[in-house]
Amino acid sequence: MNRKMTALGKSPSKIREIFEYSRGRKAAIGAENVFDFSLGNPSIPAPESVNAAIGKLISTTDSVSLHGYTSAQGDLTVRTAVADSLTARFGVPASPDDIYMTCGAAASLTVTLKAICEPGDEVVVLAPFFPEYSVFIENAGAKKVVVNTAPPDFTVDFEALGAAINKNTAAVLINFPNNPTGAVINKDEAKRLGELLREKSDALSKPIYLISDEPYRELSYEAPAPFMPCFYENTIVDYSFSKSLSVPGERIGYIFVPSSAADSRDIYAAVCGAGRSMGYVCAPSLMQHTVKNCVFDTSDISAYNANRVLFYNALCDLGYTVTKPKGAFYLFLKSPSGDSGEFCERAKKYEILMVPSDSFGITGYARIAYCVTKETIEDSIPAFKALMEEYKK
Amino acid sequence: MNRKMTALGKSPSKIREIFEYSRGRKAAIGAENVFDFSLGNPSIPAPESVNAAIGKLISTTDSVSLHGYTSAQGDLTVRTAVADSLTARFGVPASPDDIYMTCGAAASLTVTLKAICEPGDEVVVLAPFFPEYSVFIENAGAKKVVVNTAPPDFTVDFEALGAAINKNTAAVLINFPNNPTGAVINKDEAKRLGELLREKSDALSKPIYLISDEPYRELSYEAPAPFMPCFYENTIVDYSFSKSLSVPGERIGYIFVPSSAADSRDIYAAVCGAGRSMGYVCAPSLMQHTVKNCVFDTSDISAYNANRVLFYNALCDLGYTVTKPKGAFYLFLKSPSGDSGEFCERAKKYEILMVPSDSFGITGYARIAYCVTKETIEDSIPAFKALMEEYKK
Repeated sequence: MNRKMTALGKSPSKIREIFEYSRGRKAAIGAENVFDFSLGNPSIPAPESVNAAIGKLISTTDSVSLHGYTSAQGDLTVRTAVADSLTARFGVPASPDDIYMTCGAAASLTVTLKAICEPGDEVVVLAPFFPEYSVFIENAGAKKVVVNTAPPDFTVDFEALGAAINKNTAAVLINFPNNPTGAVINKDEAKRLGELLREKSDALSKPIYLISDEPYRELSYEAPAPFMPCFYENTIVDYSFSKSLSVPGERIGYIFVPSSAADSRDIYAAVCGAGRSMGYVCAPSLMQHTVKNCVFDTSDISAYNANRVLFYNALCDLGYTVTKPKGAFYLFLKSPSGDSGEFCERAKKYEILMVPSDSFGITGYARIAYCVTKETIEDSIPAFKALMEEYKK
Repeated sequence: MNRKMTALGKSPSKIREIFEYSRGRKAAIGAENVFDFSLGNPSIPAPESVNAAIGKLISTTDSVSLHGYTSAQGDLTVRTAVADSLTARFGVPASPDDIYMTCGAAASLTVTLKAICEPGDEVVVLAPFFPEYSVFIENAGAKKVVVNTAPPDFTVDFEALGAAINKNTAAVLINFPNNPTGAVINKDEAKRLGELLREKSDALSKPIYLISDEPYRELSYEAPAPFMPCFYENTIVDYSFSKSLSVPGERIGYIFVPSSAADSRDIYAAVCGAGRSMGYVCAPSLMQHTVKNCVFDTSDISAYNANRVLFYNALCDLGYTVTKPKGAFYLFLKSPSGDSGEFCERAKKYEILMVPSDSFGITGYARIAYCVTKETIEDSIPAFKALMEEYKK
């Protein structure tokens, strides 16, 4: 058997591990007494349009056609709806032939990485980053190169990024709004990023692709997150409806390969080939047709924003050092001791569950997922207060 | 970019190619005038229980829980229902911890192959075989070793199979009921296969795993298809609900790693790891919960059986040499000229679309998918007659 896969299957992600611990604690002392901020599972229901679309589809569409195979890249009418929505929202030209429907964000990433990278190529990621990036890049046979972002706001360190790009670089992988920091790139930064990558592509006489992983696109609270294809032609967008429509279990998303990207037809073909090689026959058909009817909808994400403001202010008042998040549904909290593991372990005494930042490729922080009820946040404040008092002793 | 993936994306399978040709012809001369037997797309509606389950789930289940992530290996209640159904139907011990829910048959295969094979390992397949096996085995970094089955019934050639197994063999991959021949292994053969693999495992001091790809399990018309874990302990079952429930687009299936298999816990962990590495986060949650309610149901597959008898008899009467299929929904027709490509090209003149057997790893035959309406079969008979008359001239 494949020993690497066995090891991978046996080492569940730190996040899952804490999630399992949480289940045990909740069973032992009652769910209301555990302040579980470990998992980025949307807590807001899907918009009504989702179940309405599903209900209508099963009652009005022929079974064989509704539940049948779509074309490998996704149903044409679905891809048309997605492409049109991108043009309407961001003003970019997009055609159904630029869209490849996927089984969610993880599939968007593994397919894109396998399409873009020859074995041995390098992929630059910005730390902190989603832990599974390491697994996905390895699956593509590529090598991860880490560039730190700049605290306290975790913005792109352009100098460090430029220095990390070389002739072996196939792509730069970014994630704004960011998991785990909540950082959102602004327009000036987006422009500068485009310029840097254009410069590097010219100097190296090959396109450096930008892979923009955007499951949190709609969760940007202070200004819309810039759409990177508007700033850099060689951008490939990896999207998922998991967060915008609160349907993470349904595994539905897409890859957008803009016609502006270098060799875009070949890249698109490689995306189809990579999907095929890993057994992605098509994205789930009922969910494809469902999102077709919901491309402009979102869950009521105002609740996340209310949580963000409430939690951020409360933690600052208690003396914590917190980066104010601009998007996603995470707070990045500095460890008072400087040690992430120690901080998260000590917090467990107060039934507070957070993820140490080491999992995300940097040390000294803890991630709080605030996609929880307002009550959970409010009830946790005394616990955070007691925790801070320990450090002040 | 990855040139191999681009090439793969640009060379759609022969089946898809014919499917596209078919679309063009149907647009040109009317769908009723094209006898399209190219695609194995179920033509029978899903049983009512499928849409009933979906309707009930969306109207009675909390949105966050229904559409949320399940555990990576699948929801526990779903895995329990699947495991219990296996025990009830086949008498094998099966627990939810032996079941890994997948995004359909292709995912079951790519995940299993990546779990079982170290790069460089050999996987023995029996020809004719599903063309994508080649792609999936290559994705696992393994090497495909082809062993022909024995015409006219395309049964296992045990001698040839035994000779193909060596110290580099990780697994033997079988598919009964078979695509494209319709062959179904019988009990005696299943027993003999188990004995052969046990012998080889002993001689090589390592388990030779049997991967049983069973998307057509319920489509066995003369006798139930033997369940291989009952005959060989090191069997891993790759299943999909696509055909039994007529939901191929919904991407839902499972992998069963029986506790009897050597190192079964490590294999199961490798399955989890392989799924994770390729971006399979979980199988689509709504469909997981749907199949939980339908594990004992099937579409009305009696229509396929009626087609089988009708079509087989008619073709025999016309002088064709046909292997009588026992399962799946395919007929394997011998080319009167001995050349598959010539036969299928010539058939196009009569608007008959079949897939040449070269795609399946052997020459001299054509595959007919009879998952079509009875009328299509009846209307095609004069065309098959005219085609045969050409050869008789």
